[in-house]
Amino acid sequence: MNDGGRSLRPIRALPGRDGVEVIDQRRLPHRLQLERLHTPAQVHTAIRDMWVRGAPLIGATAAYGLALQMNVDAQDDALEASAAFLRAARPTAVNLAWAVDRMLAVLRPLPAAARREAAWATADAIADDDVQVNHAIGTHGLALLRAISARRPGPVRVLTHCNAGWLATVGWGTATAPLYLAHAAGLPLQVWVDETRPRNQGASLTAWELGQAGVPHTVVADNAGGHLMQHELVDIVFVGCDRVTARGDVCNKIGTYLKALAAHDNGVPFYVAMPLSTLDRSLHDGLREIEIEERSAREVTHLAGRTAAGEVVEVQVVPDGTPAANPAFDVTPARLVTGLITERGIVAATADAIAGLAP
Amino acid sequence: MNDGGRSLRPIRALPGRDGVEVIDQRRLPHRLQLERLHTPAQVHTAIRDMWVRGAPLIGATAAYGLALQMNVDAQDDALEASAAFLRAARPTAVNLAWAVDRMLAVLRPLPAAARREAAWATADAIADDDVQVNHAIGTHGLALLRAISARRPGPVRVLTHCNAGWLATVGWGTATAPLYLAHAAGLPLQVWVDETRPRNQGASLTAWELGQAGVPHTVVADNAGGHLMQHELVDIVFVGCDRVTARGDVCNKIGTYLKALAAHDNGVPFYVAMPLSTLDRSLHDGLREIEIEERSAREVTHLAGRTAAGEVVEVQVVPDGTPAANPAFDVTPARLVTGLITERGIVAATADAIAGLAP
Repeated sequence: MNDGGRSLRPIRALPGRDGVEVIDQRRLPHRLQLERLHTPAQVHTAIRDMWVRGAPLIGATAAYGLALQMNVDAQDDALEASAAFLRAARPTAVNLAWAVDRMLAVLRPLPAAARREAAWATADAIADDDVQVNHAIGTHGLALLRAISARRPGPVRVLTHCNAGWLATVGWGTATAPLYLAHAAGLPLQVWVDETRPRNQGASLTAWELGQAGVPHTVVADNAGGHLMQHELVDIVFVGCDRVTARGDVCNKIGTYLKALAAHDNGVPFYVAMPLSTLDRSLHDGLREIEIEERSAREVTHLAGRTAAGEVVEVQVVPDGTPAANPAFDVTPARLVTGLITERGIVAATADAIAGLAP
Repeated sequence: MNDGGRSLRPIRALPGRDGVEVIDQRRLPHRLQLERLHTPAQVHTAIRDMWVRGAPLIGATAAYGLALQMNVDAQDDALEASAAFLRAARPTAVNLAWAVDRMLAVLRPLPAAARREAAWATADAIADDDVQVNHAIGTHGLALLRAISARRPGPVRVLTHCNAGWLATVGWGTATAPLYLAHAAGLPLQVWVDETRPRNQGASLTAWELGQAGVPHTVVADNAGGHLMQHELVDIVFVGCDRVTARGDVCNKIGTYLKALAAHDNGVPFYVAMPLSTLDRSLHDGLREIEIEERSAREVTHLAGRTAAGEVVEVQVVPDGTPAANPAFDVTPARLVTGLITERGIVAATADAIAGLAP
């Protein structure tokens, strides 16, 4: 499909509906390892410890987590407790709460005996919807790339941060969907991939995805993007998002704000691929209102990679005992965002334009 | 001295003047390894391969390289060839050319027989001057920190990028000199240390220096600085520089520009510690006129660290065959710079103010 013809999907329900199979993304790019999750506790762990990550994929995974709960105990108390437990696995991604709420809206009115069947059907629908939503985002983003390509010869140079690729979703990715569609359409691309410290999702996941699909790309340190834009080597920036407020402030992977500043300073269009499920209409001032997840210092002080001998090891990059801080997201103010690419089209990052998107 | 009472100096002439001893900074922070250089070729390698790095230290090292040449052949041809060879070791740092020029200005007029003695004396003077210059920068920067401290309780929160510490100079550091003086004076500090990918000079060198000196510090991913400034967790930014133009454009480690943008966007003062030897009055538009060194892609795709077993290994962090780009510096336009801290005081980053600094 979107992965160069391979049948992989970042999450799929097992045929007997006694579990789901996911890619343990912590092992990429060095090993493609599938894992099966059979309980809500395993799903919680997989989300919390980032076997699965990316706002849309987290949402779908949590939905399946609730379905697994319904396999064993579908009573009200178990439903509510499991929903709260899954919702707490990662604080920032609004899709997690969104998916759990969508499940609860279906399941709460039903008698316990009917919940299992409905839960699996709804989780499947959440997953399938995600694929369609991202494809729609892809078609709208593709139009932006075509417009750039029409203006001058050579590849369209896109910069992306973190991984908003198919690995972060159920299919296509959000920020990568336009890239995959463009590549399939024969539009020449050159993608700058921010490595995205501290977890290196760009270097490990986006680079892997693009490599699998044959999309030309170059990994750069997160520090390099401003320099590339100053030298007119970036035509457009595409990023994903974890939460967008009603006025268009964008919460996304730490470092996104710095790239938005550089894009603004250099007149480079900065677009955020935003499934409507990522919109949080209850929030306005993203900087003041969004809780930013502080992750383990060890993600900064230690780093995994593959040795020349082929072994994947973790190494320490700081002196012993060095303290580190690890805010996982930042907020890009709406004023720096050129547009939000949704499944219903591209809108300005303004309260009015966003209000015009039907819920 | 500036290293908490230890007698280390990043470079020192050996007593017999048949070589210099340097710290192989590639081994830090996991091992403190001294290396002796006896020939200009060894000095060239040590500069090119970044055993020694940091604009002021590179200058002093190149000066000693020429002195080593004078030990074996002090004729005009050898002098000129060796000067050109050393100058080519790193293209960006103006101090390298500056130190070589200062040596040539002394040596060219002398008869060959007098050059050896003069070369060592001049190299020593370049090294000693650097220590004094940095101490003067420290006193001027200290005044900025004192002013912040006087305005509110708690530690002064400083963000720094890369390593402009004593390891990058012959003593004190440039951007760190104010920190060491403040710490010695009992002024409470909290230093945010950008890890500074791809070579991690912040995580490995600045963190090591500050740890040795007991200055409170926290390492963060390069992506985090904007977020910290948005949340008013940074009072001031201090960085070093590799080359500053006559109008105040600042060439420094890749990623500096992004921090300057964030500082500007959040009203955080952004200061550049600039020994006058780093000023290149022949340049104006830094973005157009400064050649940016493109270093090996391997610095991005691979990374060294220490395993749990205590072994320092290099690991690959990208999929096999992933291309990477590695621009080593960027240019921060003068408009984003609050001031330049020189050994003669703090000046605005404007052509007029800089012209007012006597050569």
